[in-house]
Amino acid sequence: MSARLLVNGEPSTTVSAFDRGLSYGDGLFETIRFVRGVAPLWERHMARLHEGCLRLRQPLPDEETLLREAGRVIDGTEHAVVRITLTRGVGERGYAPPPARAPTRIVAGFDAPVMSGDAYAAGLRVRWCETQLAAQPLLAGLKHLNRLEQVLARAEWSDPAIGEGLLRDLDGRLISGTMTNLFAVLGGVLVTPALDRCGVAGVARAEVLTHQPEAQVRDMHPAELANASELFLSSSVRGILPVQAVGDTVYVPGPVTRALQRHWCGLGFPMEQA
Amino acid sequence: MSARLLVNGEPSTTVSAFDRGLSYGDGLFETIRFVRGVAPLWERHMARLHEGCLRLRQPLPDEETLLREAGRVIDGTEHAVVRITLTRGVGERGYAPPPARAPTRIVAGFDAPVMSGDAYAAGLRVRWCETQLAAQPLLAGLKHLNRLEQVLARAEWSDPAIGEGLLRDLDGRLISGTMTNLFAVLGGVLVTPALDRCGVAGVARAEVLTHQPEAQVRDMHPAELANASELFLSSSVRGILPVQAVGDTVYVPGPVTRALQRHWCGLGFPMEQA
Repeated sequence: MSARLLVNGEPSTTVSAFDRGLSYGDGLFETIRFVRGVAPLWERHMARLHEGCLRLRQPLPDEETLLREAGRVIDGTEHAVVRITLTRGVGERGYAPPPARAPTRIVAGFDAPVMSGDAYAAGLRVRWCETQLAAQPLLAGLKHLNRLEQVLARAEWSDPAIGEGLLRDLDGRLISGTMTNLFAVLGGVLVTPALDRCGVAGVARAEVLTHQPEAQVRDMHPAELANASELFLSSSVRGILPVQAVGDTVYVPGPVTRALQRHWCGLGFPMEQA
Repeated sequence: MSARLLVNGEPSTTVSAFDRGLSYGDGLFETIRFVRGVAPLWERHMARLHEGCLRLRQPLPDEETLLREAGRVIDGTEHAVVRITLTRGVGERGYAPPPARAPTRIVAGFDAPVMSGDAYAAGLRVRWCETQLAAQPLLAGLKHLNRLEQVLARAEWSDPAIGEGLLRDLDGRLISGTMTNLFAVLGGVLVTPALDRCGVAGVARAEVLTHQPEAQVRDMHPAELANASELFLSSSVRGILPVQAVGDTVYVPGPVTRALQRHWCGLGFPMEQA
């Protein structure tokens, strides 16, 4: 694995076997795309991390330290992804948070995934997942470390021609992809699922919603996708990805998708990332 | 922390920072009480771990290796708790399980918690938690590493006089304690909540249900506790613990609770553990 790592600011490839991130998934993470040392969505990542720390009652992150350490693990790589993990730190056995607040901070730099231009031009083929997301308002929207549902959903297929799987909640509502958020154009209106019960509120999704303030955030039913004139996925690592097919239903990238791809370029992401 | 540790059979205090147990909570654990080198409920722990590996599609555990390594980390301690953690191993970034199946095996030995005899004689004071459990049938019953709900619930109180918190699901059903299962005697019948939607199916709970085959496993409503003639908690580490009060409602340990405590002694757990 080509990665560079800092644990609590020190070069290391390991963490304590008693870290609560490992014992209980007790923590949060962000996966941040950098282009020539700059992360266009940095502020949004920090805002989500900040909210997650408040909701999990962890100490707030020191953003300057995180940015400095991100720069160290990028180490000049032009196209990099930095994963920041903040756990509640090392703890004794038992669920009770330790009285001393000494979080663990892991900053890891990776080469950015190579995406084919075709993924941005023609779009991804997508499938429906059988795994359904549980409703948990206390954790909804957060990028926390309890991700077994996503692991089970992503394990449902191995066909490399399928680029993403769509998830419903246990009531059958449409929620998101396994690692992306979903947008549809319905009757000329941009719509994305509400994430107050489950799902991860993506940083790219937040950018789309700011750029398209008339977009609707509401409960969505899978059957609505049959009427969509455009369908696309958003990812802070991979950008704006048109959906070319959900199962047998075919879509063509349209003007809203293309406008957002141009916006992504304007943010500083490379063309292939648009 | 007084603990002895083996990671994949080798003495170590750390795991890879890329372990999927840390990245996604992608794994399972068992917490096993040993008395003079013997774990009376060992077979039940292995059965649950086996089922968890099947359901998460992890390689099945090698029980002989686990037992041998448990003996090494106990290292002669008379009253020990061994935590076994099995993760899906080290992985690249991304939810997709790695093609090579190389799980991580962590075996950690701790001194058993010292329980006051009073906890067994008079019982624990218990509170209601605000945190409600999400329904996820794919994960229900398993002791997996996604435990943020339990962490949030346990963080609701710090009063040492409160020994446990009771959890409901999001539909208001009674489910369990944060680290124990719950039993009530209602109209002379032993009843415990069904755990097919959420909750951890405890090893001690399974032992109770085998010993009391007439017990009912069904959906339970919190209001039913007002009519209970006995209330107790089960834990593989702490045994059979009477509940002396839930909030302001007081209970007295009765014959069913005492019979199960005697059964626990008969299994080989010490008197204070009965």
